[in-house]
Amino acid sequence: MAQQSKITPRDKDYNQWYLDVIQQAELADHAPVKGCMVIRPNGYALWEGIQRVLDDMFKETGHVNAYFPLLIPEEFMKREAEHVEGFAPECAVVTHGGGSKLEEPLYIRPTSETIIWSMYKKWINSHRDLPLLINQWANVVRWEMRTRLFLRTTEFLWQEGHTAHATEEEAEAETRQMLEVYRRLAEDTLAIPVIQGYKTEREKFAGAKRTYTIEAMMQDHKALQAGTSHNLGQNFARAFDVTFQDEEGKQQLVWATSWGVSTRMIGALIMTHSDDRGLVLPPRIAARKVVVVPIMGKKGGADIRPEAQQLADELGLGRAVHVDDRPNVSPGQKFHQWEQRGVPIRIELGPRDVESGQAVVVRRDTGEKLFVARAELKEKVAQVLDDIQANLFARAKALREEHSFSIDDKETFLKKLEEPGGFLHAHWCGQTECEANIQKTTKATIRCIPLDAKEEKGVCPFCGGESKQRVIFAKAY
Amino acid sequence: MAQQSKITPRDKDYNQWYLDVIQQAELADHAPVKGCMVIRPNGYALWEGIQRVLDDMFKETGHVNAYFPLLIPEEFMKREAEHVEGFAPECAVVTHGGGSKLEEPLYIRPTSETIIWSMYKKWINSHRDLPLLINQWANVVRWEMRTRLFLRTTEFLWQEGHTAHATEEEAEAETRQMLEVYRRLAEDTLAIPVIQGYKTEREKFAGAKRTYTIEAMMQDHKALQAGTSHNLGQNFARAFDVTFQDEEGKQQLVWATSWGVSTRMIGALIMTHSDDRGLVLPPRIAARKVVVVPIMGKKGGADIRPEAQQLADELGLGRAVHVDDRPNVSPGQKFHQWEQRGVPIRIELGPRDVESGQAVVVRRDTGEKLFVARAELKEKVAQVLDDIQANLFARAKALREEHSFSIDDKETFLKKLEEPGGFLHAHWCGQTECEANIQKTTKATIRCIPLDAKEEKGVCPFCGGESKQRVIFAKAY
Repeated sequence: MAQQSKITPRDKDYNQWYLDVIQQAELADHAPVKGCMVIRPNGYALWEGIQRVLDDMFKETGHVNAYFPLLIPEEFMKREAEHVEGFAPECAVVTHGGGSKLEEPLYIRPTSETIIWSMYKKWINSHRDLPLLINQWANVVRWEMRTRLFLRTTEFLWQEGHTAHATEEEAEAETRQMLEVYRRLAEDTLAIPVIQGYKTEREKFAGAKRTYTIEAMMQDHKALQAGTSHNLGQNFARAFDVTFQDEEGKQQLVWATSWGVSTRMIGALIMTHSDDRGLVLPPRIAARKVVVVPIMGKKGGADIRPEAQQLADELGLGRAVHVDDRPNVSPGQKFHQWEQRGVPIRIELGPRDVESGQAVVVRRDTGEKLFVARAELKEKVAQVLDDIQANLFARAKALREEHSFSIDDKETFLKKLEEPGGFLHAHWCGQTECEANIQKTTKATIRCIPLDAKEEKGVCPFCGGESKQRVIFAKAY
Repeated sequence: MAQQSKITPRDKDYNQWYLDVIQQAELADHAPVKGCMVIRPNGYALWEGIQRVLDDMFKETGHVNAYFPLLIPEEFMKREAEHVEGFAPECAVVTHGGGSKLEEPLYIRPTSETIIWSMYKKWINSHRDLPLLINQWANVVRWEMRTRLFLRTTEFLWQEGHTAHATEEEAEAETRQMLEVYRRLAEDTLAIPVIQGYKTEREKFAGAKRTYTIEAMMQDHKALQAGTSHNLGQNFARAFDVTFQDEEGKQQLVWATSWGVSTRMIGALIMTHSDDRGLVLPPRIAARKVVVVPIMGKKGGADIRPEAQQLADELGLGRAVHVDDRPNVSPGQKFHQWEQRGVPIRIELGPRDVESGQAVVVRRDTGEKLFVARAELKEKVAQVLDDIQANLFARAKALREEHSFSIDDKETFLKKLEEPGGFLHAHWCGQTECEANIQKTTKATIRCIPLDAKEEKGVCPFCGGESKQRVIFAKAY
C-alpha cells in the first residue's frame, strides 16, 4: 500500500519541499516570536553531532572553550566603525531590566567581537599571554526581515572562535587553519562538497581585513555560505586598545581572528542530500544509522520481535540502531516514517527471513534492497554505511560540477544564471561598484574568489574592466 | 622560596577568599554589564565536565535535547498566575529590534516553561505522544540585585528539563528520578554531599505543585541549593490548554515536570573543597588531573624534559596529564600556580629521581608527598586519584555532620545559627506566616523538608504550634 506523501516534490515547489522535509522529519518548528525557531529533538541531534565533530577538532588544534555574556553595552558596539555599521541595525535591544528602565541600552549579541576584546584587554599584557585561542558555543540574535528555518532565523546557535596573536602571519595561519577545519566538517562528516575562497571587500565581515568562506551548492543550484573565518587584522585590538609587550619590551597591537559555523549548516545538510521522500542523512551525522523493522507474519505465528532485537544487538552499533516494534503501526507506515527521517539503513526482518537466516537491507539514498545472510550482516551494514557516505558526497559533487560554468560574456552569464543556474566562474574587474551593479541587475553575488583560482587574464563581462582571475558568481541563500 | 599568596584566608574574609580563589584559578571574571559574568576557559572546562556527566545520565534515562527560543512574548508570561508573579519582576525586556520599536515587548527567558508549553500544545495530541522527555542546554537572564560570581549572576548557563506525562504518578516518578540524577552528579562526580528534600510552599518554584531540592553545606556552614526538580502538576497544561486523548478516547490535561542545574553548581564545587592555597578539585571533574613538573639540575646537566614527557605518556591519561616544561619559570612558581588551579596531583621529577628510578607524587588535598617507583607509578596515580575523590567527599560530609544540630528551643536555635552556624534540624508548625517571621528575625530559611525525615511529634520553637517532623533551617546563598 503506497503511503500518501506529505512532501511537495522539489520540481513543483523547492521552497515548500524544504519546509515539508523539515516538518515531516520533525527537525524544527516556527516559534511564536516571528523569525525565531524551535529546534526539535531530531534537528538538535544533528547540531549535537556537528558540535562533537567541531569541538574535537578545535581541541586538537589547541583551542579551549569559554563563555562571554549575552548582553553588550551600546557603547562597545560603536567602537569599531565598520562593525557597528554592519551589525547595529539588526540588533535586538534591551531597555528594561528588573522592572526599571536601564541607564544605557544593552544589545543582545549579534556576534561577540566587542565584548570579547573588552576582556582580552584585561587578560593580555605580555607575549607570554599569546596566542589566546578561545571558542564559545552560544546563541546570537540578528533581527532578520526574511527568515527561513535553519538558513536565516532571528536567533540561531553557533560557535564563534576568537583568537589573539603576536604576529600577522600567525593570525593568517590560524584563519586558514580554521577554514580547513570547516572544510573537513562539511566534506568528511556532512558529505557536503565545498569551495574554499575569500570574500570581496563588499561581502566580507564587518570589521574584518579578510573573510574566508566555504561555499556549497544546493539542489536548486543556489549557493549557500556554510562557514566563515575572518582575519581581523588589528582592527579590534585598536578599537579596544589591546596591546602586548613583545620579547624586546616594546608595546605592540595584537592581531586577531574570528570564525563561526551555525545551525545554518543543518539547512545546508538538508538541502544537499534530501529527496522527494524526505530527509536523507549521511551516516556519519545520523544519530540513528539503522532501524530494524520486524515484520510479523500471520496472526498466531511466532513473535519475531526478540529476534529483531538480537539482530540489532549483533550489529554492535549501540544507540545508533533502533528497533521499531510498535504494535498497531503497519510496516508500510514505519518504512515511510523512517524514510522521511533520513535513517540511512532500514533492515526488514520477517518470519521467512528468520527461517532462511537472512535479512533485507534497504539503502535510504538509492532505495536499493540487499538480501544479506545473517552471518555477514554486521560487516555488510558497516560497508553499506560507508558506501552511502561516499555516494552522497559524490552525488552532490557531480551536481555541482554539472552546474559550474566558465562564462566569458554577459549574455551567457544571464542565460545560465536563470537556467539551469549554478556557479558561474567569470572574470571580474575588482570594482565594488560594478559588483553592486551586477547584484542589482542579476541578483547574483560574488560567492568567493576561490583559493585555487589560477592567474588568468580576462575582462569583466559586465564593465569590460581588466581582470586577472575568475571569481564565482551565483544566486545565494 | 615561599610564594606570596594572593588569596585571602577563609577565616579572615570568607567572601573575599571565594573571589580570590576564582581569580587566581582564572575561573571567571566580572563582565562589563553589572551582574554578568565571563566564564574563563578553566571555569568553562568544569561546566563541560558537568554537562558531559549530566547529559549522559539524561540520555540513559530516555531524554532528548532540543532548543527553544530566547525571546518570550509578554503575553505568555502572564498565562500562569504564580509564574508571572515570581518571574516577571526580574526579567530583562527587549523593546526594540531591527531599528524599530516592537509591537509587543519580548522577555528574555528567565526559565522556559511558558514557551515550551506553547509548543507542547502543538505537539501533544494523543497518549501516543507521551511521555515527552525533553531537555535544553541554554542561557537564561534574571535581573538580580546582589550578584556573586557563579552563585548568582544576571545571566547564567543551565539545563532545563521539561517533561509531559499522561498520569500524575508518572510525573511524580520523573521528578524524583531527576532529583536522584542530580544527587549522583553532586555526590559521585563533584564529591559534594547533599540532602534531598522538598521545599515549603513559600520556597517552591513559582508555578510548581512541589519542588524537590538538593541542599549542600558550604565551608562557612551556609546552605546552597544545588539543583531543583519540580512536579508542576497540571498548572502549565491548564495555562496553555495542553490536552491529550487517552486510550479510552477522552481528553485529559497533561501532567508536567521541570528540573534544572546551573553554573551555580561550580560555585558550590569551589566553596565545598577549596582551601587557603586556592582551588581544590575532585579528580572526576578535573580536566587536568595530573601535572608533571620536570626540575632541572645544575646548568649543563642532562635535559630531563623528554624523560618527564615519557613519564606523562606512561600514565595513559591522555589530555588529563600536562607537562609544565616552561623555561624561565621556577619550579616553586609552577607548584604554586598548579595548586591555585586545583590540579589533584603534582608529579615532580628531578635528575636524582631519574637516576633512582622514582618520582615524587604530591596530593593537592592533603599536601602529602609520596616517593613512588616508576614501575608502580601508573597504578599508584590511579589509586591516589581515587583516594582524593573519596577524601574530599568524606571531609565535606564530616563538616556537614559536625555542623548539623537537632534543636528544640528558640534560644539554642538563635545561638547555633550565629555560632558556629550550620543546618538546624528543628520542628516547624507548617505555617507560611511563621516561616516568614523566622526568616525576618533570624535570616534563616527552611532549606528543605528532608525526604528521609522521620515522623516525630514536636512543637515549633518559634510559635509553639504542633509539628510532626523536623525540617532544616539554615542561612543560605
